[in-house]
Amino acid sequence: MASKTSSLWRSLRTYQIYGANTNVGKTIMSTILCKAFKRQFPSQNVWYLKPVSTGPFDEADDRHISRFSSETKTKCLFQFDEAVSPHIAARSSQPLSDSEVRDEVLAHLTACSKDGEGTILLETAGGVHSPTPSGSSQADLYRPLRLPICLVADHRLGGISASISAFESLHIRGYDLDTVLQFEDKMYQNHDYLQEYFEKKGVPSLSLPPPPPRGQTEEEDQEMMSEYYEKMSKLDKVEEAIFSLAEKHQKRLQNLEGMSTRANNTIWYPFTQHREVSPQSIMTIDSASGDFFQTYNSASKQGALVPTFDGSASWWTQGLGHGNPELSLTAAYAAGRYGHVMFAGTIHEPALQLAESLLRHLNNPRLSKVFYSDNGSTGMEVAVKMALTASFERYKWNVPKEEVGVIGLKGSYHGDTIGAMDASEPSTFNERVHWYKGRGYWFDFPQVKMVKGKWIVEPPQGMESDFGEATEFASLAEIFDIQARLGSSTGRKYSQYIEATLDRLVNKDGKTFGALVMEPVILGAGGMLFADPLFQHLLASTIRTSPLFPSHSHTSPTAWTGLPVIHDEVFTGLYRLGTFTPSTLLQSQPDISVHAKLLTGGLVPLCCTVASQSIFDAFLGNEKRDALLHGHSYTAHPVGCHVAVESLKTMVEMEKEGVWDRAKEDWKSGSRLASVSDQAVQAWSVWSKKFVKTISYLKEVESVITLGSVLAIKLQDENFGYSSTAATGLQKKLLAGSDEFKIHVRVLGNVLYVMAGQKSKPETLRSIEKTLLDALS
Amino acid sequence: MASKTSSLWRSLRTYQIYGANTNVGKTIMSTILCKAFKRQFPSQNVWYLKPVSTGPFDEADDRHISRFSSETKTKCLFQFDEAVSPHIAARSSQPLSDSEVRDEVLAHLTACSKDGEGTILLETAGGVHSPTPSGSSQADLYRPLRLPICLVADHRLGGISASISAFESLHIRGYDLDTVLQFEDKMYQNHDYLQEYFEKKGVPSLSLPPPPPRGQTEEEDQEMMSEYYEKMSKLDKVEEAIFSLAEKHQKRLQNLEGMSTRANNTIWYPFTQHREVSPQSIMTIDSASGDFFQTYNSASKQGALVPTFDGSASWWTQGLGHGNPELSLTAAYAAGRYGHVMFAGTIHEPALQLAESLLRHLNNPRLSKVFYSDNGSTGMEVAVKMALTASFERYKWNVPKEEVGVIGLKGSYHGDTIGAMDASEPSTFNERVHWYKGRGYWFDFPQVKMVKGKWIVEPPQGMESDFGEATEFASLAEIFDIQARLGSSTGRKYSQYIEATLDRLVNKDGKTFGALVMEPVILGAGGMLFADPLFQHLLASTIRTSPLFPSHSHTSPTAWTGLPVIHDEVFTGLYRLGTFTPSTLLQSQPDISVHAKLLTGGLVPLCCTVASQSIFDAFLGNEKRDALLHGHSYTAHPVGCHVAVESLKTMVEMEKEGVWDRAKEDWKSGSRLASVSDQAVQAWSVWSKKFVKTISYLKEVESVITLGSVLAIKLQDENFGYSSTAATGLQKKLLAGSDEFKIHVRVLGNVLYVMAGQKSKPETLRSIEKTLLDALS
Repeated sequence: MASKTSSLWRSLRTYQIYGANTNVGKTIMSTILCKAFKRQFPSQNVWYLKPVSTGPFDEADDRHISRFSSETKTKCLFQFDEAVSPHIAARSSQPLSDSEVRDEVLAHLTACSKDGEGTILLETAGGVHSPTPSGSSQADLYRPLRLPICLVADHRLGGISASISAFESLHIRGYDLDTVLQFEDKMYQNHDYLQEYFEKKGVPSLSLPPPPPRGQTEEEDQEMMSEYYEKMSKLDKVEEAIFSLAEKHQKRLQNLEGMSTRANNTIWYPFTQHREVSPQSIMTIDSASGDFFQTYNSASKQGALVPTFDGSASWWTQGLGHGNPELSLTAAYAAGRYGHVMFAGTIHEPALQLAESLLRHLNNPRLSKVFYSDNGSTGMEVAVKMALTASFERYKWNVPKEEVGVIGLKGSYHGDTIGAMDASEPSTFNERVHWYKGRGYWFDFPQVKMVKGKWIVEPPQGMESDFGEATEFASLAEIFDIQARLGSSTGRKYSQYIEATLDRLVNKDGKTFGALVMEPVILGAGGMLFADPLFQHLLASTIRTSPLFPSHSHTSPTAWTGLPVIHDEVFTGLYRLGTFTPSTLLQSQPDISVHAKLLTGGLVPLCCTVASQSIFDAFLGNEKRDALLHGHSYTAHPVGCHVAVESLKTMVEMEKEGVWDRAKEDWKSGSRLASVSDQAVQAWSVWSKKFVKTISYLKEVESVITLGSVLAIKLQDENFGYSSTAATGLQKKLLAGSDEFKIHVRVLGNVLYVMAGQKSKPETLRSIEKTLLDALS
Repeated sequence: MASKTSSLWRSLRTYQIYGANTNVGKTIMSTILCKAFKRQFPSQNVWYLKPVSTGPFDEADDRHISRFSSETKTKCLFQFDEAVSPHIAARSSQPLSDSEVRDEVLAHLTACSKDGEGTILLETAGGVHSPTPSGSSQADLYRPLRLPICLVADHRLGGISASISAFESLHIRGYDLDTVLQFEDKMYQNHDYLQEYFEKKGVPSLSLPPPPPRGQTEEEDQEMMSEYYEKMSKLDKVEEAIFSLAEKHQKRLQNLEGMSTRANNTIWYPFTQHREVSPQSIMTIDSASGDFFQTYNSASKQGALVPTFDGSASWWTQGLGHGNPELSLTAAYAAGRYGHVMFAGTIHEPALQLAESLLRHLNNPRLSKVFYSDNGSTGMEVAVKMALTASFERYKWNVPKEEVGVIGLKGSYHGDTIGAMDASEPSTFNERVHWYKGRGYWFDFPQVKMVKGKWIVEPPQGMESDFGEATEFASLAEIFDIQARLGSSTGRKYSQYIEATLDRLVNKDGKTFGALVMEPVILGAGGMLFADPLFQHLLASTIRTSPLFPSHSHTSPTAWTGLPVIHDEVFTGLYRLGTFTPSTLLQSQPDISVHAKLLTGGLVPLCCTVASQSIFDAFLGNEKRDALLHGHSYTAHPVGCHVAVESLKTMVEMEKEGVWDRAKEDWKSGSRLASVSDQAVQAWSVWSKKFVKTISYLKEVESVITLGSVLAIKLQDENFGYSSTAATGLQKKLLAGSDEFKIHVRVLGNVLYVMAGQKSKPETLRSIEKTLLDALS
């Protein structure tokens, strides 16, 4: 969604009336509330909105309100004559999408908010999940607005169950329930039961006598109803309920206003220099849906929330949209079926399904075993422990265990725990960390970038003699045509350089290495460095065949040779770069790969370290101490595993359904792709080719990279590096917002990146591109 | 729950009929299914069970079934005459608890399972959440059985919403839906909508024409219904549905049978020597509820599942019961409201509430800032990074950063990532880990244990001259009477020993230390070592005032002095030992404390590292590199934070409500407690005093410890230590099971421990005590 304005206004109280079922008296309750609000706040407006109505016009709910609460300003946005569910009634009309309905509702609310202080009630149609004109559920349609709810309970036989289930359906979508409204029934006494039930949840209820039975004539009927309404709207308990509703609105605003100060008092933020933090700098997130946070806007006198695009995909975790009801349900199912169950020596369905699904989709014959941990950093420590033990077991080096290092790439980063840090070269991230010690050697490498409309592969500065001069490519796809490039002079240069360097390190410097560790294709935290895939491909193949690491004869073709190759796919995996695994793009398959972040679709922490049988076998022994003695309490927690199963399934299906086909087409067009391999054609981006080219020409821009959902813009800046603050100006401009929404992004030194979710809508991305262009020009 | 037998039988298909509302035709659908099952399997039994029925006997559902499906064996367990919800109908009768109903149902199912092959349908009353006779929800009552569901949808106006909400209520409780049954309605066409809806979820539906309208006479009515049933039960699509239901039963069994083999192929288990793993050794967990797993029983020819007590509290995580519906709902709410939202520089309600709640309940004036990470190990790394930087900043030692170590206790363990490992002394856990390096000094310490009915504090072997001889105490409480013991000769000896040792380490050996790191009271992974609280108390106070670590003048009384004191409360915190924080028992407050495991009530990973302002201030600087550069992608994920808020609230309320009062009374009785301080009286256990005393006399038992929910039995064994296998015999006996249930426990060398959940029922614990006694005697 991209609700273009606030869904919370300071002077306008909004309440959405949901029914536990159809015909439970939503309109009657609404009428009472309208009258009572007017009584309580005589000088203020009271509005009533029925967004979608079905059934004959005369009986329409807004007409009923007008009749019995004449001071209420009523409106119905979409009226269908047939007294059936809106999805059936709407069949004979123009198609009506959810976003049209939502936009109209929002427009009406916004208009009301400009018309002085007041209250508006929005009455839904039918029960909570009654279909919308488009056939979706109205609980999902209205969720992006997340208006406070008044739930009209069902007072009839069976109504307790219906009311609780309706509440649960709203609750698991992140709605807040302000009050329960119910009619008293002496026989079934649902109201007693429900009052107690909701009281335990901190939700007050208002129980009222039922309306009078139908009169003999229309006139009598109206008279009796008028009387009923007069009486009800003056009851003390109704007055109290109105007071409580109004108070909740005020408290919600006060709470939002105060949260950043309280956070400043109690929270120690990750990766944050707190000297630069103040309540003013902390962004208060009320909720989120799709690609957007709803953030508090303290500056605005009216609209208190503003949609803010989640431009870091919440630190690279978010793929399937915030507040995704399918993921909530999936998480809740696993929580309801298991909670967490201990994993050493046991198996449960979600852990097994995830392991099998991951192995199947990675489609790497080397990989056969899945080890679970909690995040990318722990998963990388596990990977390094696996690889070092495997190579130590095979080569039986006569050096202290702590002297064995890894081979990696400059600028790589694998997480914040000490073991993961040790696998990275010294940098800003770790230089002040007491127990950090970089253990290994990190290759400098040629990088891919677009400069002034051209894709180039550029050697590190001063290393032209090793890697050759910067080379221009006609398309991104050509850079990924590894097979074609292998025989090129560049390929030969790369190989020679790698061989010579390794030889020097091992034979001259006497270093011992136990693994190759790489983030395939793009190095994320190090500054979105786009490695030449040919170089990474050759680094792996050279190490695997190098006489420096003489492989013993192995019966299995999937056994590791040379050194175990670890792919840190935490950032780049699971469709981030457009393919299930970036190993496909690299045309090189690891012996160990690590998966997290998008794994759970953006919901909870979980990591899988996947290894080959020959790595696994190195830990078989007669004693427990020979085993991989690593494990976290919540290892393979069912909630995470089950959400991950669902999330992988969803993304794989999205690809099959062709959700990204338009973007793929965009990147194919105009290229001489007939000549490149299938793998190479998989290099595409959700960011439009034209836009990327356009900004690469701007004078503030040094270069641009993009692949899959990643867009990274390197700005011209004198102070190259992580401590640079060049991109923060642009960052601030984006956070100030466009007409449509704010954009929250993260910067890495002079690199500003924008990360789309896997479900981001093309129109949202086009809008961001426009804002970016405006901000940069 | 402790369902005493299986809830899945090989030859008995069980289906539970839930209705999307009351009066949706559950009994009519049941009749059709009964007849059709009989048609499909003529030689097999068909049973029908109505556990709870309300309304006049003549109209009772089981009578209806008998009438129209005469070959079905029907039964009603509890019949109430009034046609209202069972919770109202039951008021005039004897109270009827949920477990009585469940036990009767289970007894009936078990009896049926012994009577040849067949099918049984259980028809529920009203809608999914209709109240039980005790007033709870029937969806919760029946959940421990987790029978496959046939949901009868609501075909009336509003029925789409009711049906989906009913499904969601069942789904978030971990029920599996086998099929949807619905009547066709030309006007509302719910069946079309719902068929498509459930098909997307992989659930088939069966839509049937509605029954005929009521006849003029009773006879005509019966005749028409008979005809209807005959016709329906012969429909092809009904036959297909029966086939599909029967197939699902078979597939479920096959799946359970095959899971351990598939797991053996794909899973790399934590902390496991895989040479000892085979499909036979892997326990397949179908689901869990309360304290019990439902585990697959491949050996049994009939009952395929068996309740198994979760005796490690799922690696010390589980507190509020598996499959806790409140926690599921809480998790789903946060998932629905936010998903995950990035946390650097933002704030959301659950993270703020949790930080405030934790600070409030820890009630330690030193602590003011909360840092989030994913598990105990990462949280401990954060704690160590915090402490070392703070002390390095203050003392500005002229030693390399990696030379600064910690002071700790022998046998301590803080997690499996390298940084957390480095804070522990060399041990089996880390000796083969390549990058591990023990950085510090670890004190040996006097231990608390019960030996032959007496509580003693025992010095480490051969250290009687330093610590004094073993001392006997009249009660556990007296050992915790720190104030009284401070002035004792033991107290003086402890202080002298600590001072002398520190002096030698610093002045003679030239070591540099940056923090004191302790698991307060009980050291978990090291073998459930119960430290003399007086020693830990004095270790902290001695370091805080030692001239070896000259504290500069500080304006704040909450600033750290000497060295920062870190409490690793991951295992011992949050009521594990009976108090919110074990610091209360120790009467010593840390500068940094770490909380995980029970934090989220046993659902998802989350960790809080809580620090004082003076620790926090050490990271303020002009540059980002001065900050604590640590952070995980899912830092402060709303699902975990929100569940933690709920879980802390629940446990604090449980204490206030006196849930553990009986256990507290048990441990008070017979002690001379008038003389000990209030803090000391907080030493109690959920395990009965008499039982603990009894087993301490057994000849196989060397000693016993208990506190809060922990019980650890040290067995007599020659091969002392982690690599011992002494306790595995006892472990196997417990897993073989008692009459009531199996018990799954973990061992640490020759120590077998049993961990209760915070919600474990006293009767369950008494039963375990009995089994333990039998197994040990």
